[in-house]
Amino acid sequence: MLALLCENPPRLASDHPEPTRAPGEVLIGLRLAGVCDTDLQLARGYMGYRGVLGHEFVGEVLEADDARLLGKRVVADINASCGTCAACVAGDGHHCPTRSVLGIAGRDGALAERFAMPRHTLVEVPDAVADERAVFAEPLAAALHVLHDLPRDPGPCVVLGDGKLGLLIAHAVAAAGRRVIVVGHHAAKLALARAAGAETVLERDLGDDLRGVPAVVEATGSARGLSRALSLLRPRGHLILKTTVAGASEVDLSPIVIQELRVFGSRCGDLSEAMQALARGLDPTGLIAARYPLARASEAFAHAATPGTLKVLVEAPAA
Amino acid sequence: MLALLCENPPRLASDHPEPTRAPGEVLIGLRLAGVCDTDLQLARGYMGYRGVLGHEFVGEVLEADDARLLGKRVVADINASCGTCAACVAGDGHHCPTRSVLGIAGRDGALAERFAMPRHTLVEVPDAVADERAVFAEPLAAALHVLHDLPRDPGPCVVLGDGKLGLLIAHAVAAAGRRVIVVGHHAAKLALARAAGAETVLERDLGDDLRGVPAVVEATGSARGLSRALSLLRPRGHLILKTTVAGASEVDLSPIVIQELRVFGSRCGDLSEAMQALARGLDPTGLIAARYPLARASEAFAHAATPGTLKVLVEAPAA
Repeated sequence: MLALLCENPPRLASDHPEPTRAPGEVLIGLRLAGVCDTDLQLARGYMGYRGVLGHEFVGEVLEADDARLLGKRVVADINASCGTCAACVAGDGHHCPTRSVLGIAGRDGALAERFAMPRHTLVEVPDAVADERAVFAEPLAAALHVLHDLPRDPGPCVVLGDGKLGLLIAHAVAAAGRRVIVVGHHAAKLALARAAGAETVLERDLGDDLRGVPAVVEATGSARGLSRALSLLRPRGHLILKTTVAGASEVDLSPIVIQELRVFGSRCGDLSEAMQALARGLDPTGLIAARYPLARASEAFAHAATPGTLKVLVEAPAA
Repeated sequence: MLALLCENPPRLASDHPEPTRAPGEVLIGLRLAGVCDTDLQLARGYMGYRGVLGHEFVGEVLEADDARLLGKRVVADINASCGTCAACVAGDGHHCPTRSVLGIAGRDGALAERFAMPRHTLVEVPDAVADERAVFAEPLAAALHVLHDLPRDPGPCVVLGDGKLGLLIAHAVAAAGRRVIVVGHHAAKLALARAAGAETVLERDLGDDLRGVPAVVEATGSARGLSRALSLLRPRGHLILKTTVAGASEVDLSPIVIQELRVFGSRCGDLSEAMQALARGLDPTGLIAARYPLARASEAFAHAATPGTLKVLVEAPAA
């Protein structure tokens, strides 16, 4: 079958072996996948992953122990947790130490014709949610996870970064009825943030009026973004870190102590919450930059790697 | 009067002007003061402070509008907040933007024969708490503040650093009935931590068995301590930062996101809580390294600046 392999650059194999379905797993046929910045980093060697790429998808259940699942459209939590360790029993499978992660660690991903996932990771897609919205469930879940760490203070939440993640966070915070201000470089992307209900500021226009805010979400992945976040917060403000700053970063962290800030690392979210938000009408499809057939997945990947590109989607071959 | 001025090195003036008591303030006569690492940093230019040093003290009320205060032994919250701004009204005078801070910012400190503080900052010292314990109220309050940010998880709290602050935090956490493990360099200081009820590990003996803990308090003030703290925490663990790492620090912060850690900047605490803990029997006097009369405050300061020195106290002249 067709599958995009994690090499640098990624390589489309036409004869990749069919996946095998382990006990408790279902076999899923790809319908639509998204390319994420993490995929780009994985191809460059991040986490040492080798296998099929892809963790943002909507698919169709092809084989399952439970016949009622057959033919259903599904998305999945990418963390295939063991279900029995202390973290899993405590409801925290996202930190199961023996988990595999779809297309990221120890488990072939979704940029392939078919792949397997444990039954318990699946979330069904309601009929009202089309594929091109459902495919955003995984990154939207990560964006919605921000809401868990916002302070009660009703003041504005500043999002640093107008990339894919920053824009989805803008959607998530605005949909929760909270004031959100996106700071970014790109007028066109900031227009998308405004369409999501956010206020926006071009970074070069950022003045002192945005200082003293109760919450900042860092979604630039740069040391500069982190420094700026620390400078914008009011005492006891919340800084939510959504992206890892590559390597060791030279940042003056003293404001964390002096201002008694709270810093929250924030990664994956709840796919059910994301699907509910999509079903209620949250529409991130404005982020779609291009669609490619799976047979042109390498090209899709190169497009996604072009700086400033929003969401590139990859479609399964017609059945 | 005698007063130790913030210069590099600090200079003892014998003819410093008497303090004036503003409305709402009391005049305090020094009984006993402590030298803090912040004092050493201030003398080196930190925060650009110039004035009388000293913010850890127990004193006696010499003049007050409320005659019932006269002659009382008192300690004080070092933050002389305005009482009327939004932060103050919200009960957060520690972050009042127009506050002065005793011996640190805009207000002459306690390493003098006499000084003034607002009435509302004072906490009376019960008869049962001797001066040499009461003088620890301010740093102990900062140590007790750690308890506000510990997770519910009853697992051990690791304290990195066996200096004055690390040892007071060991006292605070142990007194709260929680398991605490102090990691430090100095066998003699770790013995003090054990006397406070903590377990201890020499840093050079630190193995992998301490990994995956729910809480770490960083009290070394070094980039290395911060990196170590990040490596010891379990997913969603709490890192409490008590000390600013001087300047920009090159630290790989990615574990904060990957492990979804919570980082809490933690500074001053509640002097009333500290005084209650001292009245209940918490005894930090094992940390006292030396006592000097105020007339030898420069010498006391030089002693305190010797690496590895625990608490140096400065006594007022006999009345």
